[in-house]
Amino acid sequence: MIFPKEVEVIEVGPRDGLQNEPNLIPLEKKKKLIKMLSEAGFSRIETASFVHPKWVPQMANSEEMAEYSRELAITYLALTPNQKALERAIAVQAPQIAVFIGATETFNRKNINRSIDQSLEECKDLFERAKKANLWIRGYVSMAFSCPYEGEVAFEKVRYVCDELIRLGADEISIGDTTGKANPKAVYERFSRLRDLYPHTTFVAHFHDTEKMALANVVAAMQAGITKFDSSIGGLGGCPYSPGATGNVATEELVHMLEQMGCSTNLDLHKLREASRFAKTLSSRIQ
Amino acid sequence: MIFPKEVEVIEVGPRDGLQNEPNLIPLEKKKKLIKMLSEAGFSRIETASFVHPKWVPQMANSEEMAEYSRELAITYLALTPNQKALERAIAVQAPQIAVFIGATETFNRKNINRSIDQSLEECKDLFERAKKANLWIRGYVSMAFSCPYEGEVAFEKVRYVCDELIRLGADEISIGDTTGKANPKAVYERFSRLRDLYPHTTFVAHFHDTEKMALANVVAAMQAGITKFDSSIGGLGGCPYSPGATGNVATEELVHMLEQMGCSTNLDLHKLREASRFAKTLSSRIQ
Repeated sequence: MIFPKEVEVIEVGPRDGLQNEPNLIPLEKKKKLIKMLSEAGFSRIETASFVHPKWVPQMANSEEMAEYSRELAITYLALTPNQKALERAIAVQAPQIAVFIGATETFNRKNINRSIDQSLEECKDLFERAKKANLWIRGYVSMAFSCPYEGEVAFEKVRYVCDELIRLGADEISIGDTTGKANPKAVYERFSRLRDLYPHTTFVAHFHDTEKMALANVVAAMQAGITKFDSSIGGLGGCPYSPGATGNVATEELVHMLEQMGCSTNLDLHKLREASRFAKTLSSRIQ
Repeated sequence: MIFPKEVEVIEVGPRDGLQNEPNLIPLEKKKKLIKMLSEAGFSRIETASFVHPKWVPQMANSEEMAEYSRELAITYLALTPNQKALERAIAVQAPQIAVFIGATETFNRKNINRSIDQSLEECKDLFERAKKANLWIRGYVSMAFSCPYEGEVAFEKVRYVCDELIRLGADEISIGDTTGKANPKAVYERFSRLRDLYPHTTFVAHFHDTEKMALANVVAAMQAGITKFDSSIGGLGGCPYSPGATGNVATEELVHMLEQMGCSTNLDLHKLREASRFAKTLSSRIQ
Protein backbone atom coordinates (compact mmCIF):
# COMPACT_ATOMS: atom_id res chain seq x y z
CA MET A 1 0.00 0.00 0.00
CA ILE A 2 1.02 3.59 -0.61
CA PHE A 3 1.21 6.02 2.30
CA PRO A 4 2.66 9.26 0.96
CA LYS A 5 5.18 11.11 3.11
CA GLU A 6 3.43 14.41 2.59
CA VAL A 7 -0.19 15.27 1.90
CA GLU A 8 -1.84 18.62 1.21
CA VAL A 9 -5.13 19.20 2.98
CA ILE A 10 -7.15 22.08 1.51
CA GLU A 11 -9.64 23.62 3.92
CA VAL A 12 -13.01 24.36 2.29
CA GLY A 13 -15.11 24.90 5.43
CA PRO A 14 -15.39 28.72 5.34
CA ARG A 15 -16.97 28.56 1.86
CA ASP A 16 -18.24 25.08 0.95
CA GLY A 17 -18.99 24.33 4.59
CA LEU A 18 -20.79 27.53 5.56
CA GLN A 19 -22.53 28.59 2.35
CA ASN A 20 -25.71 26.59 3.07
CA GLU A 21 -25.92 27.66 6.70
CA PRO A 22 -29.44 29.12 7.04
CA ASN A 23 -28.54 31.66 9.74
CA LEU A 24 -26.38 34.56 8.60
CA ILE A 25 -23.04 34.35 10.39
CA PRO A 26 -21.54 37.72 11.42
CA LEU A 27 -18.42 38.69 9.48
CA GLU A 28 -16.36 38.87 12.67
CA LYS A 29 -17.03 35.21 13.43
CA LYS A 30 -16.10 34.14 9.91
CA LYS A 31 -12.91 36.14 10.22
CA LYS A 32 -12.14 34.50 13.53
CA LEU A 33 -12.62 31.08 11.92
CA ILE A 34 -10.18 31.68 9.09
CA LYS A 35 -7.71 33.23 11.51
CA MET A 36 -7.81 30.06 13.62
CA LEU A 37 -7.43 27.93 10.49
CA SER A 38 -4.55 30.04 9.26
CA GLU A 39 -2.82 29.67 12.61
CA ALA A 40 -3.27 25.89 12.38
CA GLY A 41 -0.97 26.01 9.38
CA PHE A 42 -3.05 25.80 6.18
CA SER A 43 -1.38 26.95 3.02
CA ARG A 44 -4.70 27.06 1.13
CA ILE A 45 -8.23 27.84 2.36
CA GLU A 46 -11.39 28.42 0.37
CA THR A 47 -12.66 31.61 1.97
CA ALA A 48 -14.77 33.46 -0.61
CA SER A 49 -17.55 32.99 -3.12
CA PHE A 50 -18.41 35.67 -5.64
CA VAL A 51 -21.72 34.07 -6.51
CA HIS A 52 -24.40 36.82 -6.47
CA PRO A 53 -25.54 37.35 -2.83
CA LYS A 54 -29.13 36.96 -3.99
CA TRP A 55 -28.34 33.25 -4.46
CA VAL A 56 -25.98 32.72 -1.53
CA PRO A 57 -26.56 35.49 1.03
CA GLN A 58 -24.16 33.83 3.46
CA MET A 59 -21.28 34.73 1.14
CA ALA A 60 -22.28 38.40 0.63
CA ASN A 61 -19.22 39.71 2.44
CA SER A 62 -16.71 37.83 0.33
CA GLU A 63 -14.77 41.01 -0.51
CA GLU A 64 -14.13 41.54 3.20
CA MET A 65 -13.21 37.88 3.60
CA ALA A 66 -10.83 38.13 0.65
CA GLU A 67 -9.23 41.25 2.09
CA TYR A 68 -8.81 39.61 5.48
CA SER A 69 -7.40 36.45 3.88
CA ARG A 70 -4.77 38.60 2.22
CA GLU A 71 -3.94 40.25 5.56
CA LEU A 72 -3.43 36.78 7.05
CA ALA A 73 -1.27 35.79 4.04
CA ILE A 74 -3.62 32.91 3.18
CA THR A 75 -3.52 31.66 -0.40
CA TYR A 76 -7.27 31.61 -0.71
CA LEU A 77 -9.66 30.08 -3.20
CA ALA A 78 -12.65 32.13 -4.36
CA LEU A 79 -15.62 30.62 -6.16
CA THR A 80 -16.26 32.45 -9.45
CA PRO A 81 -18.93 30.70 -11.47
CA ASN A 82 -19.47 33.50 -14.01
CA GLN A 83 -17.98 36.66 -15.50
CA LYS A 84 -19.50 38.96 -12.90
CA ALA A 85 -18.01 36.82 -10.15
CA LEU A 86 -14.65 36.78 -11.91
CA GLU A 87 -14.67 40.59 -12.11
CA ARG A 88 -15.09 40.76 -8.35
CA ALA A 89 -12.25 38.23 -7.91
CA ILE A 90 -9.97 40.24 -10.19
CA ALA A 91 -10.89 43.46 -8.39
CA VAL A 92 -9.61 42.02 -5.08
CA GLN A 93 -6.70 40.20 -6.81
CA ALA A 94 -7.76 36.78 -5.58
CA PRO A 95 -4.83 34.38 -6.00
CA GLN A 96 -6.92 31.30 -6.90
CA ILE A 97 -10.39 30.94 -8.39
CA ALA A 98 -12.67 27.91 -8.61
CA VAL A 99 -15.51 26.91 -10.90
CA PHE A 100 -18.03 24.08 -10.49
CA ILE A 101 -19.36 21.76 -13.15
CA GLY A 102 -21.66 18.85 -12.43
CA ALA A 103 -20.85 15.54 -14.10
CA THR A 104 -24.54 15.00 -14.86
CA GLU A 105 -26.76 17.05 -17.10
CA THR A 106 -29.70 17.02 -14.66
CA PHE A 107 -27.69 18.26 -11.69
CA ASN A 108 -26.00 20.95 -13.72
CA ARG A 109 -29.33 22.20 -15.03
CA LYS A 110 -31.01 22.14 -11.63
CA ASN A 111 -28.01 23.70 -9.91
CA ILE A 112 -27.04 26.47 -12.32
CA ASN A 113 -29.73 26.34 -14.99
CA ARG A 114 -27.31 25.51 -17.80
CA SER A 115 -26.34 22.45 -19.77
CA ILE A 116 -22.86 21.05 -19.15
CA ASP A 117 -21.76 22.36 -22.54
CA GLN A 118 -23.13 25.83 -21.80
CA SER A 119 -21.19 25.79 -18.53
CA LEU A 120 -18.02 24.73 -20.32
CA GLU A 121 -18.53 27.43 -22.95
CA GLU A 122 -18.75 29.97 -20.15
CA CYS A 123 -15.56 28.53 -18.61
CA LYS A 124 -13.71 29.14 -21.85
CA ASP A 125 -14.04 32.93 -21.66
CA LEU A 126 -13.69 32.87 -17.91
CA PHE A 127 -10.43 30.90 -17.92
CA GLU A 128 -8.94 33.10 -20.65
CA ARG A 129 -9.67 36.22 -18.70
CA ALA A 130 -8.52 34.68 -15.42
CA LYS A 131 -5.24 33.60 -16.95
CA LYS A 132 -4.62 37.07 -18.30
CA ALA A 133 -5.10 38.35 -14.76
CA ASN A 134 -2.64 35.70 -13.54
CA LEU A 135 -5.23 33.83 -11.48
CA TRP A 136 -4.68 30.17 -10.74
CA ILE A 137 -7.72 28.01 -11.64
CA ARG A 138 -9.35 25.09 -9.88
CA GLY A 139 -12.12 23.13 -11.59
CA TYR A 140 -14.53 21.22 -9.37
CA VAL A 141 -16.32 18.23 -10.87
CA SER A 142 -19.42 17.67 -8.70
CA MET A 143 -21.45 14.45 -8.54
CA ALA A 144 -18.46 12.53 -9.81
CA PHE A 145 -19.72 9.23 -8.34
CA SER A 146 -23.45 9.49 -7.91
CA CYS A 147 -26.13 12.09 -8.50
CA PRO A 148 -29.34 12.71 -6.56
CA TYR A 149 -31.24 12.86 -9.88
CA GLU A 150 -29.46 10.37 -12.12
CA GLY A 151 -28.15 7.82 -9.58
CA GLU A 152 -24.80 6.18 -10.30
CA VAL A 153 -22.65 8.31 -12.61
CA ALA A 154 -20.77 6.65 -15.49
CA PHE A 155 -17.04 7.32 -15.58
CA GLU A 156 -17.34 8.63 -19.12
CA LYS A 157 -19.37 11.60 -17.84
CA VAL A 158 -16.64 12.52 -15.38
CA ARG A 159 -14.04 12.04 -18.09
CA TYR A 160 -15.88 14.35 -20.48
CA VAL A 161 -15.89 17.23 -17.98
CA CYS A 162 -12.25 16.61 -17.01
CA ASP A 163 -11.22 16.53 -20.68
CA GLU A 164 -12.78 19.91 -21.28
CA LEU A 165 -11.59 21.56 -18.06
CA ILE A 166 -8.04 20.41 -18.71
CA ARG A 167 -8.19 21.52 -22.35
CA LEU A 168 -9.39 24.96 -21.21
CA GLY A 169 -6.44 25.27 -18.87
CA ALA A 170 -7.55 24.35 -15.33
CA ASP A 171 -4.52 24.12 -13.05
CA GLU A 172 -6.09 21.56 -10.73
CA ILE A 173 -9.23 19.42 -10.71
CA SER A 174 -11.12 18.53 -7.54
CA ILE A 175 -13.23 15.41 -8.00
CA GLY A 176 -16.24 15.67 -5.70
CA ASP A 177 -18.23 12.84 -4.16
CA THR A 178 -20.94 15.40 -3.50
CA THR A 179 -23.56 12.89 -2.39
CA GLY A 180 -21.15 10.98 -0.11
CA LYS A 181 -21.99 7.68 -1.74
CA ALA A 182 -18.59 6.76 -3.16
CA ASN A 183 -16.99 3.57 -1.87
CA PRO A 184 -13.29 2.69 -1.67
CA LYS A 185 -13.39 0.36 -4.70
CA ALA A 186 -15.08 2.96 -6.93
CA VAL A 187 -12.69 5.63 -5.65
CA TYR A 188 -9.64 3.53 -6.38
CA GLU A 189 -10.85 2.62 -9.85
CA ARG A 190 -11.97 6.11 -10.83
CA PHE A 191 -8.84 7.90 -9.61
CA SER A 192 -6.59 5.24 -11.17
CA ARG A 193 -8.24 5.81 -14.53
CA LEU A 194 -7.97 9.58 -14.19
CA ARG A 195 -4.29 9.30 -13.33
CA ASP A 196 -3.67 7.08 -16.36
CA LEU A 197 -5.63 9.36 -18.69
CA TYR A 198 -4.13 12.62 -17.41
CA PRO A 199 -0.71 11.89 -15.93
CA HIS A 200 0.24 15.58 -15.85
CA THR A 201 -2.90 16.90 -14.18
CA THR A 202 -3.16 17.55 -10.45
CA PHE A 203 -6.27 15.88 -9.01
CA VAL A 204 -7.74 16.54 -5.59
CA ALA A 205 -10.21 14.21 -3.85
CA HIS A 206 -13.22 15.86 -2.24
CA PHE A 207 -15.20 13.45 -0.04
CA HIS A 208 -18.33 13.79 2.05
CA ASP A 209 -18.79 11.54 5.07
CA THR A 210 -22.49 10.83 4.59
CA GLU A 211 -22.09 7.06 4.74
CA LYS A 212 -19.04 6.95 7.02
CA MET A 213 -16.76 5.92 4.16
CA ALA A 214 -14.86 9.21 3.72
CA LEU A 215 -11.66 8.14 5.51
CA ALA A 216 -11.70 4.73 3.81
CA ASN A 217 -12.08 6.60 0.51
CA VAL A 218 -9.06 8.77 1.35
CA VAL A 219 -6.94 5.63 1.86
CA ALA A 220 -8.24 4.19 -1.44
CA ALA A 221 -7.52 7.43 -3.33
CA MET A 222 -3.96 7.39 -1.99
CA GLN A 223 -3.46 3.99 -3.59
CA ALA A 224 -4.24 5.66 -6.92
CA GLY A 225 -1.61 8.31 -6.26
CA ILE A 226 -3.75 11.11 -4.84
CA THR A 227 -1.96 13.31 -2.29
CA LYS A 228 -4.35 16.29 -2.08
CA PHE A 229 -7.62 16.25 -0.18
CA ASP A 230 -10.35 18.81 0.47
CA SER A 231 -11.92 18.82 3.92
CA SER A 232 -14.05 21.00 6.10
CA ILE A 233 -13.32 21.93 9.69
CA GLY A 234 -15.75 20.25 12.11
CA GLY A 235 -17.38 18.48 9.14
CA LEU A 236 -19.22 21.68 8.20
CA GLY A 237 -21.37 21.45 5.12
CA GLY A 238 -24.01 19.14 3.85
CA CYS A 239 -27.64 19.99 3.48
CA PRO A 240 -29.21 22.12 6.24
CA TYR A 241 -32.60 20.54 5.54
CA SER A 242 -31.57 16.97 6.41
CA PRO A 243 -30.23 17.09 9.97
CA GLY A 244 -28.79 13.57 9.84
CA ALA A 245 -26.72 14.15 6.70
CA THR A 246 -23.07 14.83 7.35
CA GLY A 247 -21.04 17.29 5.35
CA ASN A 248 -17.52 17.21 4.03
CA VAL A 249 -15.06 14.91 5.73
CA ALA A 250 -14.00 16.67 8.95
CA THR A 251 -10.56 18.25 8.66
CA GLU A 252 -9.50 17.24 12.17
CA GLU A 253 -10.46 13.59 11.60
CA LEU A 254 -8.69 13.48 8.26
CA VAL A 255 -5.56 15.12 9.64
CA HIS A 256 -5.56 12.85 12.68
CA MET A 257 -5.61 9.76 10.45
CA LEU A 258 -2.98 11.13 8.08
CA GLU A 259 -0.59 12.05 10.89
CA GLN A 260 -1.13 8.66 12.55
CA MET A 261 -0.13 7.02 9.26
CA GLY A 262 3.04 9.10 9.06
CA CYS A 263 1.69 11.29 6.23
CA SER A 264 2.80 14.79 7.17
CA THR A 265 0.24 17.59 6.70
CA ASN A 266 2.18 20.44 8.33
CA LEU A 267 -0.96 21.21 10.33
CA ASP A 268 -1.32 21.59 14.08
CA LEU A 269 -3.94 19.07 15.18
CA HIS A 270 -4.45 20.71 18.54
CA LYS A 271 -5.25 24.06 16.89
CA LEU A 272 -7.49 22.31 14.37
CA ARG A 273 -9.53 20.81 17.17
CA GLU A 274 -9.93 24.24 18.72
CA ALA A 275 -11.03 25.62 15.37
CA SER A 276 -13.44 22.69 15.01
CA ARG A 277 -15.08 23.48 18.34
CA PHE A 278 -15.51 27.07 17.24
CA ALA A 279 -16.77 26.08 13.77
CA LYS A 280 -19.46 23.92 15.31
CA THR A 281 -20.83 26.92 17.21
CA LEU A 282 -21.48 28.54 13.81
CA SER A 283 -23.46 25.58 12.50
CA SER A 284 -27.15 25.00 13.04
CA ARG A 285 -26.73 21.42 11.91
CA ILE A 286 -23.87 20.01 14.00
CA GLN A 287 -24.30 19.52 17.74
CA MET B 1 -6.06 -2.99 -4.49
CA ILE B 2 -7.69 -6.21 -3.30
CA PHE B 3 -11.49 -6.33 -2.94
CA PRO B 4 -12.41 -9.94 -2.07
CA LYS B 5 -15.49 -11.42 -3.71
CA GLU B 6 -16.74 -12.77 -0.43
CA VAL B 7 -16.26 -11.62 3.15
CA GLU B 8 -17.41 -13.19 6.42
CA VAL B 9 -18.83 -10.76 8.95
CA ILE B 10 -19.05 -12.21 12.46
CA GLU B 11 -21.60 -10.51 14.69
CA VAL B 12 -20.31 -9.93 18.23
CA GLY B 13 -22.95 -7.46 19.45
CA PRO B 14 -24.99 -9.78 21.71
CA ARG B 15 -21.89 -10.61 23.76
CA ASP B 16 -19.03 -8.14 23.21
CA GLY B 17 -21.50 -5.34 22.54
CA LEU B 18 -23.91 -5.84 25.42
CA GLN B 19 -21.69 -7.19 28.19
CA ASN B 20 -20.80 -3.75 29.58
CA GLU B 21 -24.34 -2.41 29.38
CA PRO B 22 -25.03 -1.17 32.95
CA ASN B 23 -28.79 -1.89 32.87
CA LEU B 24 -29.76 -5.57 32.91
CA ILE B 25 -31.45 -6.41 29.61
CA PRO B 26 -34.37 -8.87 29.88
CA LEU B 27 -33.67 -12.27 28.33
CA GLU B 28 -36.60 -11.89 25.95
CA LYS B 29 -35.09 -8.78 24.40
CA LYS B 30 -31.73 -10.44 23.96
CA LYS B 31 -33.46 -13.39 22.32
CA LYS B 32 -35.31 -11.05 20.01
CA LEU B 33 -32.01 -9.43 19.03
CA ILE B 34 -30.31 -12.68 18.06
CA LYS B 35 -33.44 -13.82 16.22
CA MET B 36 -33.36 -10.64 14.14
CA LEU B 37 -29.64 -11.12 13.51
CA SER B 38 -30.15 -14.74 12.56
CA GLU B 39 -32.87 -13.73 10.12
CA ALA B 40 -30.51 -11.19 8.58
CA GLY B 41 -28.38 -14.15 7.53
CA PHE B 42 -25.42 -14.49 9.89
CA SER B 43 -23.68 -17.82 9.95
CA ARG B 44 -21.85 -16.98 13.16
CA ILE B 45 -22.88 -14.83 16.14
CA GLU B 46 -21.23 -14.44 19.53
CA THR B 47 -24.21 -14.92 21.82
CA ALA B 48 -22.92 -16.24 25.14
CA SER B 49 -20.30 -15.67 27.81
CA PHE B 50 -19.66 -18.19 30.54
CA VAL B 51 -17.65 -15.76 32.63
CA HIS B 52 -18.95 -15.97 36.25
CA PRO B 53 -22.08 -13.76 36.53
CA LYS B 54 -20.53 -12.09 39.56
CA TRP B 55 -18.13 -10.40 37.10
CA VAL B 56 -20.49 -9.90 34.17
CA PRO B 57 -24.09 -10.00 35.44
CA GLN B 58 -25.38 -9.05 31.99
CA MET B 59 -24.31 -12.47 30.72
CA ALA B 60 -25.86 -14.51 33.55
CA ASN B 61 -28.44 -16.14 31.28
CA SER B 62 -25.91 -17.46 28.79
CA GLU B 63 -27.25 -21.03 29.06
CA GLU B 64 -30.65 -19.82 27.90
CA MET B 65 -29.02 -17.78 25.14
CA ALA B 66 -27.01 -20.84 24.07
CA GLU B 67 -30.12 -22.98 24.04
CA TYR B 68 -32.01 -20.41 22.00
CA SER B 69 -29.07 -20.02 19.59
CA ARG B 70 -29.21 -23.76 19.00
CA GLU B 71 -32.96 -23.55 18.32
CA LEU B 72 -32.28 -20.84 15.73
CA ALA B 73 -29.51 -23.00 14.22
CA ILE B 74 -26.92 -20.27 14.84
CA THR B 75 -23.31 -21.39 14.98
CA TYR B 76 -22.60 -19.38 18.10
CA LEU B 77 -19.46 -18.35 19.87
CA ALA B 78 -19.33 -18.56 23.68
CA LEU B 79 -16.69 -16.83 25.74
CA THR B 80 -14.96 -19.35 28.06
CA PRO B 81 -12.03 -17.76 29.83
CA ASN B 82 -11.49 -20.57 32.36
CA GLN B 83 -12.19 -24.23 33.20
CA LYS B 84 -15.45 -23.49 34.99
CA ALA B 85 -16.68 -21.55 31.96
CA LEU B 86 -15.57 -24.33 29.63
CA GLU B 87 -17.55 -26.85 31.69
CA ARG B 88 -20.68 -24.77 31.17
CA ALA B 89 -19.93 -24.54 27.43
CA ILE B 90 -19.46 -28.30 27.19
CA ALA B 91 -22.66 -28.91 29.15
CA VAL B 92 -24.67 -26.99 26.51
CA GLN B 93 -22.55 -28.37 23.67
CA ALA B 94 -21.52 -24.94 22.43
CA PRO B 95 -20.13 -25.28 18.89
CA GLN B 96 -17.43 -22.62 19.20
CA ILE B 97 -15.62 -21.17 22.20
CA ALA B 98 -13.48 -18.08 22.55
CA VAL B 99 -10.73 -17.00 24.93
CA PHE B 100 -9.16 -13.55 25.39
CA ILE B 101 -5.53 -12.72 25.94
CA GLY B 102 -4.20 -9.17 26.13
CA ALA B 103 -1.07 -8.41 24.17
CA THR B 104 0.26 -6.35 27.07
CA GLU B 105 1.19 -7.57 30.52
CA THR B 106 -0.46 -4.62 32.30
CA PHE B 107 -3.80 -4.99 30.55
CA ASN B 108 -3.87 -8.74 31.07
CA ARG B 109 -3.16 -8.34 34.79
CA LYS B 110 -5.70 -5.56 35.26
CA ASN B 111 -8.33 -7.36 33.21
CA ILE B 112 -8.04 -10.92 34.46
CA ASN B 113 -5.48 -10.69 37.26
CA ARG B 114 -3.00 -13.01 35.56
CA SER B 115 0.25 -12.64 33.66
CA ILE B 116 0.15 -13.42 29.94
CA ASP B 117 2.08 -16.63 30.58
CA GLN B 118 -0.36 -17.69 33.30
CA SER B 119 -3.23 -17.07 30.88
CA LEU B 120 -1.50 -19.10 28.19
CA GLU B 121 -0.83 -21.91 30.67
CA GLU B 122 -4.54 -21.97 31.47
CA CYS B 123 -5.33 -22.04 27.74
CA LYS B 124 -3.21 -25.16 27.37
CA ASP B 125 -5.49 -27.28 29.57
CA LEU B 126 -8.56 -25.52 28.32
CA PHE B 127 -7.79 -26.10 24.64
CA GLU B 128 -6.98 -29.78 25.26
CA ARG B 129 -10.26 -30.35 26.98
CA ALA B 130 -12.21 -28.33 24.41
CA LYS B 131 -10.68 -30.28 21.57
CA LYS B 132 -11.64 -33.57 23.24
CA ALA B 133 -15.20 -32.26 23.39
CA ASN B 134 -14.94 -31.29 19.69
CA LEU B 135 -15.28 -27.57 20.29
CA TRP B 136 -13.91 -25.17 17.76
CA ILE B 137 -11.60 -22.52 19.31
CA ARG B 138 -11.21 -18.80 18.68
CA GLY B 139 -8.39 -16.90 20.37
CA TYR B 140 -8.83 -13.15 20.77
CA VAL B 141 -5.72 -11.03 21.05
CA SER B 142 -6.83 -7.79 22.73
CA MET B 143 -4.93 -4.50 22.68
CA ALA B 144 -3.12 -5.62 19.55
CA PHE B 145 -2.30 -2.04 18.48
CA SER B 146 -2.39 0.13 21.56
CA CYS B 147 -3.09 -0.31 25.26
CA PRO B 148 -4.65 2.14 27.71
CA TYR B 149 -1.83 1.38 30.19
CA GLU B 150 1.22 0.79 28.00
CA GLY B 151 0.45 2.98 24.97
CA GLU B 152 1.62 1.78 21.57
CA VAL B 153 2.03 -2.01 21.49
CA ALA B 154 5.12 -3.52 19.83
CA PHE B 155 4.40 -6.10 17.14
CA GLU B 156 6.57 -8.63 18.97
CA LYS B 157 4.07 -8.70 21.85
CA VAL B 158 1.24 -9.56 19.47
CA ARG B 159 3.42 -12.13 17.79
CA TYR B 160 4.27 -13.80 21.08
CA VAL B 161 0.60 -14.34 21.99
CA CYS B 162 -0.24 -15.50 18.44
CA ASP B 163 2.68 -17.94 18.49
CA GLU B 164 1.41 -19.52 21.67
CA LEU B 165 -2.28 -19.59 20.75
CA ILE B 166 -1.48 -21.21 17.42
CA ARG B 167 0.88 -23.73 19.03
CA LEU B 168 -1.86 -24.65 21.51
CA GLY B 169 -4.28 -25.28 18.66
CA ALA B 170 -6.54 -22.23 18.21
CA ASP B 171 -8.62 -22.61 15.05
CA GLU B 172 -8.87 -18.88 14.42
CA ILE B 173 -7.32 -15.72 15.84
CA SER B 174 -9.19 -12.43 16.14
CA ILE B 175 -6.81 -9.48 16.33
CA GLY B 176 -8.47 -6.75 18.37
CA ASP B 177 -7.91 -3.02 18.12
CA THR B 178 -9.59 -2.76 21.49
CA THR B 179 -8.79 0.90 22.05
CA GLY B 180 -9.83 1.93 18.53
CA LYS B 181 -6.53 3.66 17.89
CA ALA B 182 -5.23 1.57 14.99
CA ASN B 183 -4.68 3.38 11.69
CA PRO B 184 -4.74 1.95 8.15
CA LYS B 185 -0.95 1.91 7.79
CA ALA B 186 -0.41 0.04 11.08
CA VAL B 187 -3.25 -2.34 10.21
CA TYR B 188 -1.79 -3.13 6.80
CA GLU B 189 1.70 -3.66 8.17
CA ARG B 190 0.63 -5.76 11.16
CA PHE B 191 -1.72 -8.05 9.24
CA SER B 192 0.82 -8.44 6.42
CA ARG B 193 3.42 -9.60 8.92
CA LEU B 194 0.97 -11.99 10.58
CA ARG B 195 0.03 -13.46 7.19
CA ASP B 196 3.69 -13.95 6.31
CA LEU B 197 4.50 -15.54 9.68
CA TYR B 198 1.43 -17.80 9.83
CA PRO B 199 0.28 -18.51 6.28
CA HIS B 200 -1.99 -21.35 7.42
CA THR B 201 -3.76 -19.53 10.24
CA THR B 202 -7.14 -17.83 9.86
CA PHE B 203 -7.03 -14.27 11.16
CA VAL B 204 -10.04 -12.07 11.84
CA ALA B 205 -9.85 -8.28 12.21
CA HIS B 206 -11.77 -6.77 15.11
CA PHE B 207 -11.96 -2.97 14.92
CA HIS B 208 -13.52 -0.33 17.11
CA ASP B 209 -14.66 2.95 15.57
CA THR B 210 -13.43 5.24 18.35
CA GLU B 211 -11.45 7.50 16.03
CA LYS B 212 -13.60 7.03 12.90
CA MET B 213 -10.93 4.89 11.23
CA ALA B 214 -12.67 1.48 11.48
CA LEU B 215 -13.88 1.29 7.86
CA ALA B 216 -10.55 2.60 6.56
CA ASN B 217 -8.88 -0.10 8.65
CA VAL B 218 -11.13 -2.75 7.11
CA VAL B 219 -9.99 -1.69 3.63
CA ALA B 220 -6.35 -1.76 4.76
CA ALA B 221 -6.72 -5.21 6.35
CA MET B 222 -8.18 -6.51 3.06
CA GLN B 223 -5.02 -5.46 1.28
CA ALA B 224 -3.14 -7.82 3.63
CA GLY B 225 -5.48 -10.65 2.72
CA ILE B 226 -8.00 -10.48 5.56
CA THR B 227 -11.54 -11.56 4.61
CA LYS B 228 -13.13 -12.00 8.06
CA PHE B 229 -14.29 -9.11 10.24
CA ASP B 230 -15.98 -8.86 13.63
CA SER B 231 -18.61 -6.18 14.05
CA SER B 232 -21.39 -5.22 16.39
CA ILE B 233 -24.93 -4.35 15.36
CA GLY B 234 -25.67 -0.65 15.87
CA GLY B 235 -22.07 -0.15 17.03
CA LEU B 236 -22.91 -1.63 20.44
CA GLY B 237 -20.02 -1.89 22.84
CA GLY B 238 -17.38 0.43 24.13
CA CYS B 239 -17.07 1.70 27.62
CA PRO B 240 -20.33 2.69 29.36
CA TYR B 241 -18.44 5.21 31.47
CA SER B 242 -17.25 7.33 28.55
CA PRO B 243 -20.37 8.38 26.65
CA GLY B 244 -18.47 9.76 23.67
CA ALA B 245 -16.49 6.57 23.04
CA THR B 246 -17.85 4.46 20.23
CA GLY B 247 -17.90 0.69 20.34
CA ASN B 248 -17.17 -1.93 17.76
CA VAL B 249 -17.52 -0.98 14.12
CA ALA B 250 -21.26 -1.02 13.38
CA THR B 251 -22.32 -4.12 11.44
CA GLU B 252 -24.72 -2.26 9.18
CA GLU B 253 -22.09 0.33 8.22
CA LEU B 254 -19.50 -2.37 7.56
CA VAL B 255 -21.90 -4.47 5.50
CA HIS B 256 -23.08 -1.44 3.54
CA MET B 257 -19.51 -0.60 2.54
CA LEU B 258 -18.65 -4.20 1.68
CA GLU B 259 -21.73 -4.68 -0.48
CA GLN B 260 -21.09 -1.35 -2.23
CA MET B 261 -17.61 -2.60 -3.06
CA GLY B 262 -18.96 -5.81 -4.50
CA CYS B 263 -17.75 -7.92 -1.56
CA SER B 264 -20.62 -10.28 -0.88
CA THR B 265 -21.53 -10.85 2.78
CA ASN B 266 -24.71 -12.94 2.31
CA LEU B 267 -26.42 -10.59 4.75
CA ASP B 268 -29.66 -8.67 4.31
CA LEU B 269 -28.85 -5.00 4.86
CA HIS B 270 -32.46 -3.99 5.30
CA LYS B 271 -32.92 -6.54 8.11
CA LEU B 272 -29.62 -5.49 9.63
CA ARG B 273 -30.82 -1.90 9.82
CA GLU B 274 -33.99 -3.04 11.56
CA ALA B 275 -31.90 -5.06 14.01
CA SER B 276 -29.68 -2.02 14.54
CA ARG B 277 -32.66 0.17 15.46
CA PHE B 278 -33.76 -2.46 17.97
CA ALA B 279 -30.23 -2.94 19.33
CA LYS B 280 -29.94 0.78 20.01
CA THR B 281 -33.04 0.64 22.22
CA LEU B 282 -31.09 -1.80 24.45
CA SER B 283 -28.16 0.51 24.85
CA SER B 284 -27.87 3.27 27.41
CA ARG B 285 -24.95 4.72 25.52
CA ILE B 286 -26.16 5.08 21.93
CA GLN B 287 -28.82 7.63 21.05
